[in-house]
Amino acid sequence: MKKLINTPDLVVPDALRGMATAHPELSVDAEAQIVTRAGGAVPGKVGVVSGGGAGHEPMQVGFVGRGMLDAAVSGPVFTSPVPDRILEATRAGDSGAGVVHIISNYTGDVLNFLMAAEEAEDEGIKSAQVIVADDVAVKADGTNAGRRGTGAVLLVERLAGALAETGASLAEVAALGQRTNDMSRSYGVALTSCTTPAKGTPNFELGANEIELGIGIHGEPGRERRAVTTAREIVEAMVGAILEDLPEAAGAPVIALINGLGGTPLQELYIMHAELESALSPRGITIARSLVGNYISSLDMAGCTITLCRADEQMLALWDSPIHTPALRWAC
Amino acid sequence: MKKLINTPDLVVPDALRGMATAHPELSVDAEAQIVTRAGGAVPGKVGVVSGGGAGHEPMQVGFVGRGMLDAAVSGPVFTSPVPDRILEATRAGDSGAGVVHIISNYTGDVLNFLMAAEEAEDEGIKSAQVIVADDVAVKADGTNAGRRGTGAVLLVERLAGALAETGASLAEVAALGQRTNDMSRSYGVALTSCTTPAKGTPNFELGANEIELGIGIHGEPGRERRAVTTAREIVEAMVGAILEDLPEAAGAPVIALINGLGGTPLQELYIMHAELESALSPRGITIARSLVGNYISSLDMAGCTITLCRADEQMLALWDSPIHTPALRWAC
Repeated sequence: MKKLINTPDLVVPDALRGMATAHPELSVDAEAQIVTRAGGAVPGKVGVVSGGGAGHEPMQVGFVGRGMLDAAVSGPVFTSPVPDRILEATRAGDSGAGVVHIISNYTGDVLNFLMAAEEAEDEGIKSAQVIVADDVAVKADGTNAGRRGTGAVLLVERLAGALAETGASLAEVAALGQRTNDMSRSYGVALTSCTTPAKGTPNFELGANEIELGIGIHGEPGRERRAVTTAREIVEAMVGAILEDLPEAAGAPVIALINGLGGTPLQELYIMHAELESALSPRGITIARSLVGNYISSLDMAGCTITLCRADEQMLALWDSPIHTPALRWAC
Repeated sequence: MKKLINTPDLVVPDALRGMATAHPELSVDAEAQIVTRAGGAVPGKVGVVSGGGAGHEPMQVGFVGRGMLDAAVSGPVFTSPVPDRILEATRAGDSGAGVVHIISNYTGDVLNFLMAAEEAEDEGIKSAQVIVADDVAVKADGTNAGRRGTGAVLLVERLAGALAETGASLAEVAALGQRTNDMSRSYGVALTSCTTPAKGTPNFELGANEIELGIGIHGEPGRERRAVTTAREIVEAMVGAILEDLPEAAGAPVIALINGLGGTPLQELYIMHAELESALSPRGITIARSLVGNYISSLDMAGCTITLCRADEQMLALWDSPIHTPALRWAC
């Protein structure tokens, strides 16, 4: 294993120290693994709080700031933070108006956030939960944990975070988060495995000319393996899987996210965006807003996810509103 | 070779099509491989124009926009654009106030930009050149082409671009660009080779536990190979090489760039930033501004470069001024 780290057990606190030194506009507790805005909770504003395993940077800690999250808590690599830490982040994000938890749909995350929410309620902190489950590679069939949360986590956090800045209520922010989730679908493709610092070897093996479609962002098995092919054919397969599951997309504007998994250069992500536009245009789907880059990574995995979110006017206006986080910053 | 591409010969135009579809604020000629601001040259403003081989995305095409470049021209992967195309980009960037060319110090780039500048002069377009040469791994000894341009290219383009927005003259913008270059030093480390689309195999081989210090951003050989070690030791070696060459850094604020080479996750880049701060602080050097991410990549190479720029008040104020490009956006 070759990584720019000190020791595997210090990866998360060391990276958080790096965030602290690079971003004075954040308050970073590298030991508790909690990141908040330097100014603390915004009086009167509903707090938007998230968290999850590390290894997906900039998600979640890089999404803290005006127009997105108030607090984020990081677990160890690919492991949910414990309820106590989620509770601590919830307290930090609450100014009295309550907190919306945005949770990626993984068993540990959901369980731990719900436990923290109960404890928060005992302390008088109101909360609402939005569970993000957008990965169409997993069919929710009642026997599994349902769909995984991937790219839509960013969209839900951004739009709910933007609405919270306007002074909207807890119920309104949660409802918009839920609606964003309901309107979003994602699909991933991997060219390589990732290597976790603790294990030191690839999580799974892919042949020298093999790609895996439907991969999860922790390397969960996908739907199928194929011989490597053109970006155009890969996008076509990904878009097909997404649109099969996203009703009434034709004619609607979408927010499109081409998300790199950590080991894929930006050049390739832009090629994927070009092919996405070519695939959507003849289907009458307009890309109204785009985001291309590494936002929800899987350590050093090569590959990407595509997320499409059918967006109405309110969602587009919220998307465009001011945002100032380490990973996303515009229209300040 | 596994890449998200169509065919090796379409990598650059396809990626530019992706930029065109993702960034309506840009005007992209995917065939000529020239990117300009959608509004064209800004009347009365000195144009800032750059270019170079592709494979370093977002550099240079992702740096076009308010507060940075007016136009950028991309060559094929790792290959300089031809003089005709540079001339075309120069014309596009000129509003009558002249153009500052910012050139990475590689033989082909320098030669082609100087030829284009001569032709531009014949057409009545004044220009000045800033040749960026910041990589301390190469000792300029009169027998070689001198130092390579790496991370300082971003800093020079940003600060010269910001000054140009204020209505400064051609000479003033060029002088600030030159001063930024003179105050900047960089050093790179690679954990893996990159693989060019045309060749399809790694440009060089590194052992399973080997890193290369002093690597160039095209995979040019470095100063030494070492067994992989901690981020702390790697940073110490890099900072040592940089400071040996950056006089009077102690006590001065620096702009610090931790730049990923394309295949290294953000988590590791933040760890490098933490260690950079730990290495500089006892030496009396304050990091006044930070940038952490993939800005000057080398396709899918794992590794990073560190750039330090000794910055005065003017440079810090220009750094903070409004910028709106695909890769850098703040304080709008």
